[in-house]
Amino acid sequence: MSAARLIGLDWGTSSLRAYFLGAEGSILEQRDSPLGIMRVQNGDFAGAFAQTCGDWLRTHPQAPVLLAGMIGSKQGWTEAPYCACPADAAAIAAALAPLPLSGRSAHIVPGLSCANAAGVPDVMRGEETQIIGALSAAGSHLAVLPGTHSKWAWVEQGAVVRFASYMTGEIYAALSGHTILGRMMQADAPHDPAAFVRGVRYGLEAPQELMSRVFSARTLGLFGQLSEAALPSYLSGLLIGSEIAGAAGATPHADAITILGNAALTQRYVEAFAIAGMATAAGPADCAALGLWRIAKSAGLLA
Amino acid sequence: MSAARLIGLDWGTSSLRAYFLGAEGSILEQRDSPLGIMRVQNGDFAGAFAQTCGDWLRTHPQAPVLLAGMIGSKQGWTEAPYCACPADAAAIAAALAPLPLSGRSAHIVPGLSCANAAGVPDVMRGEETQIIGALSAAGSHLAVLPGTHSKWAWVEQGAVVRFASYMTGEIYAALSGHTILGRMMQADAPHDPAAFVRGVRYGLEAPQELMSRVFSARTLGLFGQLSEAALPSYLSGLLIGSEIAGAAGATPHADAITILGNAALTQRYVEAFAIAGMATAAGPADCAALGLWRIAKSAGLLA
Repeated sequence: MSAARLIGLDWGTSSLRAYFLGAEGSILEQRDSPLGIMRVQNGDFAGAFAQTCGDWLRTHPQAPVLLAGMIGSKQGWTEAPYCACPADAAAIAAALAPLPLSGRSAHIVPGLSCANAAGVPDVMRGEETQIIGALSAAGSHLAVLPGTHSKWAWVEQGAVVRFASYMTGEIYAALSGHTILGRMMQADAPHDPAAFVRGVRYGLEAPQELMSRVFSARTLGLFGQLSEAALPSYLSGLLIGSEIAGAAGATPHADAITILGNAALTQRYVEAFAIAGMATAAGPADCAALGLWRIAKSAGLLA
Repeated sequence: MSAARLIGLDWGTSSLRAYFLGAEGSILEQRDSPLGIMRVQNGDFAGAFAQTCGDWLRTHPQAPVLLAGMIGSKQGWTEAPYCACPADAAAIAAALAPLPLSGRSAHIVPGLSCANAAGVPDVMRGEETQIIGALSAAGSHLAVLPGTHSKWAWVEQGAVVRFASYMTGEIYAALSGHTILGRMMQADAPHDPAAFVRGVRYGLEAPQELMSRVFSARTLGLFGQLSEAALPSYLSGLLIGSEIAGAAGATPHADAITILGNAALTQRYVEAFAIAGMATAAGPADCAALGLWRIAKSAGLLA
């Protein structure tokens, strides 16, 4: 019998990343594709999958397949119902949704759901796999996954206990693209570190005033206090600062805060947290790969 | 000499309202036009003005003209520099910008500017005229003008001391039109009072969590707890509740709170304030007309 292998995909809305994994989740090969679920024509997910990983499927007919992310949503290949928090790798593994793929073990990782103190539900899809990959250690952790919909997840002893979404990235895009704030902005300006810091500080100071404070991204331009090139970084900082101040107030104690995101965004959050007086660490790259491996192992797929 | 008359316009971005005013600011005639400054072709404001009020100009060659609103902005007819707060009718009258209009007294009302505790500027154009019209009495007043950019103005002894803008209306439009929240909404649904109240309560509870709480306008739909028809009213309530809770925390004591807006929006704010335990009164209709009259009188234009 050959060594365990796994074909694992982090398949999101606008792109996907495919991994061919070996012992202990080591990445043997990796591919990026723009075929996010919203870009797959006519719902032909099987075709998109074959197009991306066909050679792996052919050369490794025994390798199990595990998909995480929006591919398990109602708009995806097969709906994988949410797994309720608290959820660790074992709970997620027990809730995998089988995917009919000729003569092969194939599954979709469920997203997670939880309810806040007011009973209002929240959901994630894909981030749970990154968290499982990044945070297997004992103790209490806060995992922050910045992005279109940032997630703040409280993780204890390897289980996601509770989490909250912040629409920071999508609100940034809506404000800069579809309100008066965008009119004075130089949309393609390079990152302006000083303007970013100024925005972070202003946002941290009074997150409850966010709908008022964002208007400063117009008035500071009107009064010549910030240039058109500085305004995008300023608004980004203002939203991130507001997110951190608002979310930190709702956060139980954690032994450590880990940021899981792409390099540029992680750097912005690490800096903003530092301004707020909170130490953070950037998580490992490709934690989705390790999460897929751990979930597959927990489900007994690698036996 | 005939009795004093005034041709006064509240000339905004997307529409204008023209008044022909008589003794004590009584409205002798009133006209609405879609010729807001963004809809005037080739900057021909003189033509748009003549088209709207030409007969008044002909029949009353002595009547002074006073324009308020975005018509005094950089994109308007003649720029009227901002008047710094605190500003009462006399200060505004002293800062009118002359408008060259053949052989007639004609002016534009300046907008107001102020700076908050952090030194960040804020601006209004047009609302100052409504406030002057609605609140001439002694005492301290809070005037709330809901809209695209809601204004909260602290008025003492008839002077606007300080104010803050909230982008509530424009953020509602951006979120419902250009984020994932809009996908499940029935955009043209009638107002849903129960969903509105639910949103207000959730927003009032934690305005610092706004970027997270707005995501509930998706998850409550996903989990079937709110219908697609209820979601627009829910999101509206959530934003208005957040605005009120955030702004009220930054508000000095006022003897009274007056809402100045159109009937539908005023009703929503009166209700949301009531849920927050704050008594309000709706201001008089057409306070812009009375404000134009008072400013003209203060400037000696009606002599």
